[in-house]
Amino acid sequence: MPGYNHLFIPGPTNMPERIRRACDRGLQDMRAPDFPEFVRPLLRDLKRIFKTETGEVFVFNGSGTGGWEAAIANTLSPGDKVLTSVFGQFSMLWVDMCQRFGLDVQQIDCTWGEGVPVEQYAEILKADTRHEIKAVLVCHNETATGVTSDVAGVRKALDDAGHPALLMVDGVSSIASIDFQMDAWGVDVAVTGSQKGLMMPTGLAVVAVSQRALEMRHTAQLPRTYFAFEDQMRFNAQGFFPYTPATTLLYGLREAVDMLLEEGLENVVARHHRVAEGVRRAVHAWGLELCARRPELYSDTVSAILVPEHIDSAEIVRHAYQRYNLSIGGGLTKVKGRLFRIGHLGDMNELMLLTAISGAEMAMRDCGIMVEPGSGVAAAQEYYRGVEIGQTDRAAAE
Amino acid sequence: MPGYNHLFIPGPTNMPERIRRACDRGLQDMRAPDFPEFVRPLLRDLKRIFKTETGEVFVFNGSGTGGWEAAIANTLSPGDKVLTSVFGQFSMLWVDMCQRFGLDVQQIDCTWGEGVPVEQYAEILKADTRHEIKAVLVCHNETATGVTSDVAGVRKALDDAGHPALLMVDGVSSIASIDFQMDAWGVDVAVTGSQKGLMMPTGLAVVAVSQRALEMRHTAQLPRTYFAFEDQMRFNAQGFFPYTPATTLLYGLREAVDMLLEEGLENVVARHHRVAEGVRRAVHAWGLELCARRPELYSDTVSAILVPEHIDSAEIVRHAYQRYNLSIGGGLTKVKGRLFRIGHLGDMNELMLLTAISGAEMAMRDCGIMVEPGSGVAAAQEYYRGVEIGQTDRAAAE
Amino acid sequence: MPGYNHLFIPGPTNMPERIRRACDRGLQDMRAPDFPEFVRPLLRDLKRIFKTETGEVFVFNGSGTGGWEAAIANTLSPGDKVLTSVFGQFSMLWVDMCQRFGLDVQQIDCTWGEGVPVEQYAEILKADTRHEIKAVLVCHNETATGVTSDVAGVRKALDDAGHPALLMVDGVSSIASIDFQMDAWGVDVAVTGSQKGLMMPTGLAVVAVSQRALEMRHTAQLPRTYFAFEDQMRFNAQGFFPYTPATTLLYGLREAVDMLLEEGLENVVARHHRVAEGVRRAVHAWGLELCARRPELYSDTVSAILVPEHIDSAEIVRHAYQRYNLSIGGGLTKVKGRLFRIGHLGDMNELMLLTAISGAEMAMRDCGIMVEPGSGVAAAQEYYRGVEIGQTDRAAAE
Amino acid sequence: MPGYNHLFIPGPTNMPERIRRACDRGLQDMRAPDFPEFVRPLLRDLKRIFKTETGEVFVFNGSGTGGWEAAIANTLSPGDKVLTSVFGQFSMLWVDMCQRFGLDVQQIDCTWGEGVPVEQYAEILKADTRHEIKAVLVCHNETATGVTSDVAGVRKALDDAGHPALLMVDGVSSIASIDFQMDAWGVDVAVTGSQKGLMMPTGLAVVAVSQRALEMRHTAQLPRTYFAFEDQMRFNAQGFFPYTPATTLLYGLREAVDMLLEEGLENVVARHHRVAEGVRRAVHAWGLELCARRPELYSDTVSAILVPEHIDSAEIVRHAYQRYNLSIGGGLTKVKGRLFRIGHLGDMNELMLLTAISGAEMAMRDCGIMVEPGSGVAAAQEYYRGVEIGQTDRAAAE
Repeated sequence: MPGYNHLFIPGPTNMPERIRRACDRGLQDMRAPDFPEFVRPLLRDLKRIFKTETGEVFVFNGSGTGGWEAAIANTLSPGDKVLTSVFGQFSMLWVDMCQRFGLDVQQIDCTWGEGVPVEQYAEILKADTRHEIKAVLVCHNETATGVTSDVAGVRKALDDAGHPALLMVDGVSSIASIDFQMDAWGVDVAVTGSQKGLMMPTGLAVVAVSQRALEMRHTAQLPRTYFAFEDQMRFNAQGFFPYTPATTLLYGLREAVDMLLEEGLENVVARHHRVAEGVRRAVHAWGLELCARRPELYSDTVSAILVPEHIDSAEIVRHAYQRYNLSIGGGLTKVKGRLFRIGHLGDMNELMLLTAISGAEMAMRDCGIMVEPGSGVAAAQEYYRGVEIGQTDRAAAE
Repeated sequence: MPGYNHLFIPGPTNMPERIRRACDRGLQDMRAPDFPEFVRPLLRDLKRIFKTETGEVFVFNGSGTGGWEAAIANTLSPGDKVLTSVFGQFSMLWVDMCQRFGLDVQQIDCTWGEGVPVEQYAEILKADTRHEIKAVLVCHNETATGVTSDVAGVRKALDDAGHPALLMVDGVSSIASIDFQMDAWGVDVAVTGSQKGLMMPTGLAVVAVSQRALEMRHTAQLPRTYFAFEDQMRFNAQGFFPYTPATTLLYGLREAVDMLLEEGLENVVARHHRVAEGVRRAVHAWGLELCARRPELYSDTVSAILVPEHIDSAEIVRHAYQRYNLSIGGGLTKVKGRLFRIGHLGDMNELMLLTAISGAEMAMRDCGIMVEPGSGVAAAQEYYRGVEIGQTDRAAAE
Repeated sequence: MPGYNHLFIPGPTNMPERIRRACDRGLQDMRAPDFPEFVRPLLRDLKRIFKTETGEVFVFNGSGTGGWEAAIANTLSPGDKVLTSVFGQFSMLWVDMCQRFGLDVQQIDCTWGEGVPVEQYAEILKADTRHEIKAVLVCHNETATGVTSDVAGVRKALDDAGHPALLMVDGVSSIASIDFQMDAWGVDVAVTGSQKGLMMPTGLAVVAVSQRALEMRHTAQLPRTYFAFEDQMRFNAQGFFPYTPATTLLYGLREAVDMLLEEGLENVVARHHRVAEGVRRAVHAWGLELCARRPELYSDTVSAILVPEHIDSAEIVRHAYQRYNLSIGGGLTKVKGRLFRIGHLGDMNELMLLTAISGAEMAMRDCGIMVEPGSGVAAAQEYYRGVEIGQTDRAAAE
Repeated sequence: MPGYNHLFIPGPTNMPERIRRACDRGLQDMRAPDFPEFVRPLLRDLKRIFKTETGEVFVFNGSGTGGWEAAIANTLSPGDKVLTSVFGQFSMLWVDMCQRFGLDVQQIDCTWGEGVPVEQYAEILKADTRHEIKAVLVCHNETATGVTSDVAGVRKALDDAGHPALLMVDGVSSIASIDFQMDAWGVDVAVTGSQKGLMMPTGLAVVAVSQRALEMRHTAQLPRTYFAFEDQMRFNAQGFFPYTPATTLLYGLREAVDMLLEEGLENVVARHHRVAEGVRRAVHAWGLELCARRPELYSDTVSAILVPEHIDSAEIVRHAYQRYNLSIGGGLTKVKGRLFRIGHLGDMNELMLLTAISGAEMAMRDCGIMVEPGSGVAAAQEYYRGVEIGQTDRAAAE
């Protein structure tokens, strides 16, 4: 199909040329004497992306799912109790993994469109005076519903209860895009993948681990080799990896980290809010609703837009792809057919989002949702024109 | 600046990944025994792009300007009379070159916004019974004003006058985008560059030459070496080049030719018309005018949009680039400050143009042209939604 | 350092331009309607690389180590007995993984330089009349010592004993380089990585599984999610993956498979033998010995060359890298300092190996092994000159 | 053919990854407001490559041949007398161009294998008291014969004669590889192409011009547009180009300049001498002779090696390519069949040259020149081992 594909799924995201070029290189000896000169600064600077000074960051050839596995296999034992909540596809899948690994999952089922039920967590933790709960799992940004949860709130619930459980966070679609503060929030394990806010090809799982969580490796009984922190630590200390690392992707990661730090994480976060808010203005102008229930849940990396009852959102997604070369996301499992998703994370600018909004308008109209042509675009345009770049206050353009 | 640059100048154009990948290769021996197996089919298939069976195609490391030089230096002698017309920056520059080469230029000055004055050409040619005019120069698509001229009409004028002058065409921003028929129109030299309809990096001049024009090399007295057809012919016949060719670009050219032939030239032309018409609908919805004076002059590769008297279009272009990472073209020399240009040639699809239209709307409003937000987008959207892909009738969506 | 790095480690290998280009692309929607049109033929054609018609092939974002984990986690339960042997770093590491996963490992320790002890396996299997051994593990090509083992022999041992144990093969440094026949040899799980014979960047684990082994997933009790066959099967059947696949690498894999099938697997195997034999001639000319004990154990993908007692081979490897930009492999654990390794797998031709031999000669002399200058090169040259390309008979050039 | 091609022609040369990556980018607006921020420092730093502070450097989409045309068309008029000498293919072709441009060429024919006849130049210049000679042409490094001439000697001849003729130098295969000092040697026009010492793809002509030569544009009567200095100067002053520049190549040029300056031009020159000397040691060991007549003429960028009378060198070149994937150069015109050439310029290290020597040995033996196997390799190895990197004294390893 002529012209380029317009990629607005919530990951993989649009890869900047700098990262693409960085990945495009010949292979090399991962045991070369000077390889550590590349590895060590990379692992060090990755900590800044997670905002941790005391934690360690590990990079696996893998994906976010592999990162989840690393998080639990290195810290827990069969039968350990974990507290979690389900409000979308990805929070659900992590629970499924916990069950497969023989953990005792205490799961709170929420409406899809809600976030982590912080108050319920608080009650449960307070009630767990024997500290049977070993870990609390939080999906920071539920990619399936466009909901961002309150990680700091969960930390507060743990602290208020004086509860020692580990705090594990799925930050796959939040880290490097939405404000995330590992140390400040007392996060013990944070997981992301390369193809989201890091703007890279899929293929790396990046996991940050607190010292407290690292200590758990001595007692955790779940089997692990590929995703073992222990092996990574031993080799990383020398600037190497326990098995062959994906060097072409590591160079992309180096460039991604450089780009994020050059722009400044605060600016990255502000930019994500800005482009996202434009999409929300468009949704409002269309007379449609987000899946996320309340403004404080709105995700700055993906907007899940509910369609009218009689419409199958999968049809819109398929049509957008085939007719306009526009890739947007559909609804998964529980919300299948009910919503479509516009990803707005990674290397995005305003005009890119106007493309997505334009295409969504055409696809919706073609599929029977008679939004006013250009209405969403106009609303987003006026917002984008008004807001100052660098401005972080949500109220700014309002 | 985060996010990608939105490139809507009338060349260089958006390079498809296939072409980009094709260019990305190591260097090679341009005298290798198997190099001709690559060169010969390439030169052969290029003829199909020009729609010539009897002509020859030459590829120079160069640009469109170099192609112009090749056209005149290989066919004309100092003092030779050439008939030409000026109605924009590029038709003007070709005249300047002719004068530098000591040709006797008969130049018709037209309003910028008009095309080749076919009737005046017809009269002059009819009057030139001694056939002093050796060549007639036509700028097929004036990139500066968005005007497409009637090459077939000029051929008819020559034929009606029984005039033997060579017909030379600047097809830099038309060939491979707008209908061009070298043999059917009796074109003697046709010039293009790699960075326009061929969707490639800048760096190649591609020139098609009729047998009649080739014969002129025996008598043409203008000096030439670098751009000499004679040398190219001698080496091309063996599958080589007279000096080191830009092999990385030649591989891009191979891919470009393949892509164009796969899509089908008729479909390419129809697609250019389709995306262009959307832009024109937007311009109409904005209440603005094109520089091109009449619908039959409207270019399907670039639209030059006049701004209100009190506005400096250069400001819009600069602002669009700096604020929205949108590259559009400005007005050149005579129309400096008076218009901005949206290029819509090469590897374009509808949604890409909606991006350009969106960005132009914001930039215009920021600079004081108070078009209705989303109005151009809406008009283009509705046109794009209505027209069938592959449909070539202008009336289709109306 | 000026000039390119000369990469002769036994993986990652030299990436052909075609594969590099194939990987160099923008990201895309892994749930797009047409993605299965890419995935299905790829999975189908991968079977040909493993020479299996009845098995299934799975592709994970990972590495060979991850492939090992997939092999055991999907087929075995804690406490299951596995028969294995250790004769080098990689056979040793797989045993370590088995132990971490709580398997009951019956391990035969062999001299490093020997291969799988087929006769001992035969005896043990014959004696195991209660079929307590659930799986037999074979390291087809021990990368650390340059030894290729007799997989067909192990199959015969199993058959002769009428033993139902699964036959699992680490083919990381053999598959796509050395003759490997999954169906003919009755292999149940075969594991490789992308950065060896597949000539790709590191980042993919590729695992082929027999129907019999697949059935084990219903009873196998080891926990698994990331590497679960079950999930892959369910999604692959639709042409998708259970989590985000590394699409840029998958396109490289497509190209790798195409290249291998174009050359023809028989020719690939013959070529590997040919380039390897040249290296062995050089070693002989130097008056040195291979770590591999007997010609029938000689690996066609890597040669491990023993250095004289008083020399530290690590010094040679380091010096070669720093002085000549030559990457060769060193000795690992038990053979640390005792040998250096020249990898000759993947996209190799004769002249490339002469480079490695030349560089090794200089590095050895610089480090005190006074081989005759040019002696290894001369021996390899004369072999390469004499042997016919395509000739597979070892005796050919002798 | 499996494995990579071994490229040892005297240009195009082996492109370093850094340059290749730099070229691999999307297209961009060459009139963007920030484009000058890229162009100006590039043009400034190019001066350092030519070692000129007072001259100007121009970059054309073109090739070395185009650079020659620029040199004469901007400075001379029809009928102007130029002094030149012919001792190889490229010195010959430049004379041919001069003749086509109507210059009055005083040509000294030398034996191929000799360089510029400085003494004859001196006599002629001294005798030309009326200063009819307007320019003296020097081919600094004759690529066809591997001869480097004495440019400084020619400057001295001009100075001794008090002669005002312009000194024009073809530095295509010398600049950025062999010592070249524009200001110190009083060179007026120096020409190179991108695909030689600049290690880039073919496609750019780079021309440095003294202020004195620039002034000639006011009186020079040869026609020019594409290669006009005047237009370049006017646009370059603003940070732009008179027509669309080959931006992808310009980014490669930026990287090339950075690489050369990082290594240091003195080190680049010393490295070229070092790798070249190894080749000469091999030639000596083979019992063969260079085409270059005396050591002081030996080129550090290409060695032209004479073959025995009864051998056709073209056969060796063809065979090396087809059998060993080795690209070396053949003999051109007068020396056709008499020599083969090993290019050793650009991004070269010692081990790369050993590859070329190895391959040449095999190809020669296959074609009937019975050099001792490994003899050239051994001689070069021992030289390379002995010489210190950074050492520039020819005597060093002797």
